[in-house]
Amino acid sequence: MKILVLNCGSSSVKYQLFDMTDESVLAKGIVERVGMTDAILTHRPTGKEKYCHVEPILEHTSAIKVVTNILVHPEHGVIQDVKEIDAVGHRVVHGGEKFSQSTLITQEVKNVLTEYIELAPLHNPPNLKGIAAAESVLPDVPQVGVFDTAFHSTIPRYAYLYALPYTLYQRYRIRRYGFHGTSHKFVARRVAQLMQKEFSALKIITCHLGNGASITAVDRGKSVETSMGFTPLEGLIMGTRAGDIDPAIIPYVMAKEELSLGEVDAMLNKHSGILGVSGIGSDMRDIEKAAEEGHERAQLALEMYRYRIRKYIGAYIAAMNGVDAIVFTAGIGENDPVSRAIIGKQLSFFGVEIDEERNNCRGVEREITTPTSKVKLWVIPTNEELMIARDTMEILMAKE
Amino acid sequence: MKILVLNCGSSSVKYQLFDMTDESVLAKGIVERVGMTDAILTHRPTGKEKYCHVEPILEHTSAIKVVTNILVHPEHGVIQDVKEIDAVGHRVVHGGEKFSQSTLITQEVKNVLTEYIELAPLHNPPNLKGIAAAESVLPDVPQVGVFDTAFHSTIPRYAYLYALPYTLYQRYRIRRYGFHGTSHKFVARRVAQLMQKEFSALKIITCHLGNGASITAVDRGKSVETSMGFTPLEGLIMGTRAGDIDPAIIPYVMAKEELSLGEVDAMLNKHSGILGVSGIGSDMRDIEKAAEEGHERAQLALEMYRYRIRKYIGAYIAAMNGVDAIVFTAGIGENDPVSRAIIGKQLSFFGVEIDEERNNCRGVEREITTPTSKVKLWVIPTNEELMIARDTMEILMAKE
Repeated sequence: MKILVLNCGSSSVKYQLFDMTDESVLAKGIVERVGMTDAILTHRPTGKEKYCHVEPILEHTSAIKVVTNILVHPEHGVIQDVKEIDAVGHRVVHGGEKFSQSTLITQEVKNVLTEYIELAPLHNPPNLKGIAAAESVLPDVPQVGVFDTAFHSTIPRYAYLYALPYTLYQRYRIRRYGFHGTSHKFVARRVAQLMQKEFSALKIITCHLGNGASITAVDRGKSVETSMGFTPLEGLIMGTRAGDIDPAIIPYVMAKEELSLGEVDAMLNKHSGILGVSGIGSDMRDIEKAAEEGHERAQLALEMYRYRIRKYIGAYIAAMNGVDAIVFTAGIGENDPVSRAIIGKQLSFFGVEIDEERNNCRGVEREITTPTSKVKLWVIPTNEELMIARDTMEILMAKE
Repeated sequence: MKILVLNCGSSSVKYQLFDMTDESVLAKGIVERVGMTDAILTHRPTGKEKYCHVEPILEHTSAIKVVTNILVHPEHGVIQDVKEIDAVGHRVVHGGEKFSQSTLITQEVKNVLTEYIELAPLHNPPNLKGIAAAESVLPDVPQVGVFDTAFHSTIPRYAYLYALPYTLYQRYRIRRYGFHGTSHKFVARRVAQLMQKEFSALKIITCHLGNGASITAVDRGKSVETSMGFTPLEGLIMGTRAGDIDPAIIPYVMAKEELSLGEVDAMLNKHSGILGVSGIGSDMRDIEKAAEEGHERAQLALEMYRYRIRKYIGAYIAAMNGVDAIVFTAGIGENDPVSRAIIGKQLSFFGVEIDEERNNCRGVEREITTPTSKVKLWVIPTNEELMIARDTMEILMAKE
């Protein structure tokens, strides 16, 4: 079975084609600058040379056409015929309260997702465009939606509600949804496998630390708490997002600086976080370099960033009343041994014993605590695309 | 030495007169409805009968005059002459970044506090009025300001800054200040004394749970983190305050409901929290009663309230990388054994063993964990007035 995984943004289409007999990647790539006359296709077929091409690609249907064409291309392709594609798995950011699992896309599903545009105005529209485009290019192929929010649908009510007037929940469904669910689920399952323990017997904290970042408490197989909330703004300090603040700061700053709602939203999402504190940028490598060279606010940004993660880990140990494993994943989680070491050392009270040597790694699957460490820390590279492909296959099999 | 402690609100003056030779309370009371023609004095002289009186009291100077008059009253009084009052200690809510300790009030201090009105528009103006009034009624008596924020001045920069554009800190001093400092300090010191340990050797978490509520991490004698932030809105779920939410909810709700800045502020501070979730009220006794009778949203509000406290305790254990004692104080902290038991049981991973029988108490000073509990839980009634009197005396002694 071959499954095409699509992640459609407003001006990009990422793709991976999996052969599910051995979960191998046949090809992957990205179409960037969709909507422009100089859109770029970067195609990486496994075992063949990378191929780049620039051409006008004005909307998502054309972009997906370009993808299917290159997949069957005599020289750069990896399959003979598009008919070999058994299903398409789509990453969808917001599944709202309805989708607690990945689901076969029907007209009804699309209607509900259209309603959810209000909850994810930046992400759901391109996801929906991608679905429509894939349907038109591959009309007889089943399409499956895999939601960033679905894994968090098990969070109990006392944890997903905010202490706001209850009517806001009734009227607008304002609650914690959480995001990065596919990634949290992937690494949580994987760590159980690597520890040779039942997923349903472990208390796991997963730290997805990328440009966006969130932490999840996975209690015996279920997400019971996560740091992103109604939107991806809440929680950790991120590249350009503030994460948690005193909510009263918002009306205060709006009054002082005469900001509109759009401006304050942009301030919190695009000009805060590591960028806002350091004044340098949002890329962790730049910040670490500047900090090493003595840049005071870069050092401060790093301290704040690591401290916030540490506090969340403590909070989630309390939320589960225990922890067996803590997983670091995504760009920073996988590639920043310094942050992991600092965070790990300051969790010694909980029984964490970081192994400096094991921890000195990037992007590999590895336990990074000592054999005597009561709580195990792991680095596990995430693979949301594979998780999407697996879910898609599962739904296909159930359908047949 | 006799010290008068004053806590001046916008329409009330609370007072206590201490004899500092044995820290005994000679009298305490409150003037309510200041500004009205039917203001009420309720005076409680120790060892004498309570006395109530209604009369027009139009501003703070008259109110404090009423207080000093009743203190020297032949029948209801407790001293012969106002000259016996050696000093006045004032509760001041916001000491900003300047006042890291209690301080003798001078013109310069008053100027700075006037600047801080912007940071605490509801609280600092009546505090300042109270100081001016006390100066006019007791002109030769030293006045001391004791700040709610002062104990938190030791919080490190990486913990007090928000991950917002740094310019907001530079321009408006937007940062975490924390509140309830006098109470946190009092019970943290007291628990060290009761445990017969050095204050400077303990890691303590103090939970001030009243209608306003905050949690503080006290690491070897110093506040290193607290849940209230730039304002008293952040952190725990309170009677009518939301505490932590996804900041993105604010512009979202403002747009949906067409709220002004003042309205959203009122929503978060006055119509949220226990009141907003339960839909019943903000008094914990009413909520617990309703929950027992099966009121579903009252039960939900309690679950959310207790869960938030538990998460903060976990976060602060991580912040200090350890904990020796956790203290419950203030109205709910002292008088709600059910909440303490539920929170305590769910912290067993950290070595907390609640003793149900010991815990079954209200408003007394008591350890409520078993002898084998690795982390000790305590109930300690707070006494902010005594703390203010002590600080005032200390400053007086240093001055002489």
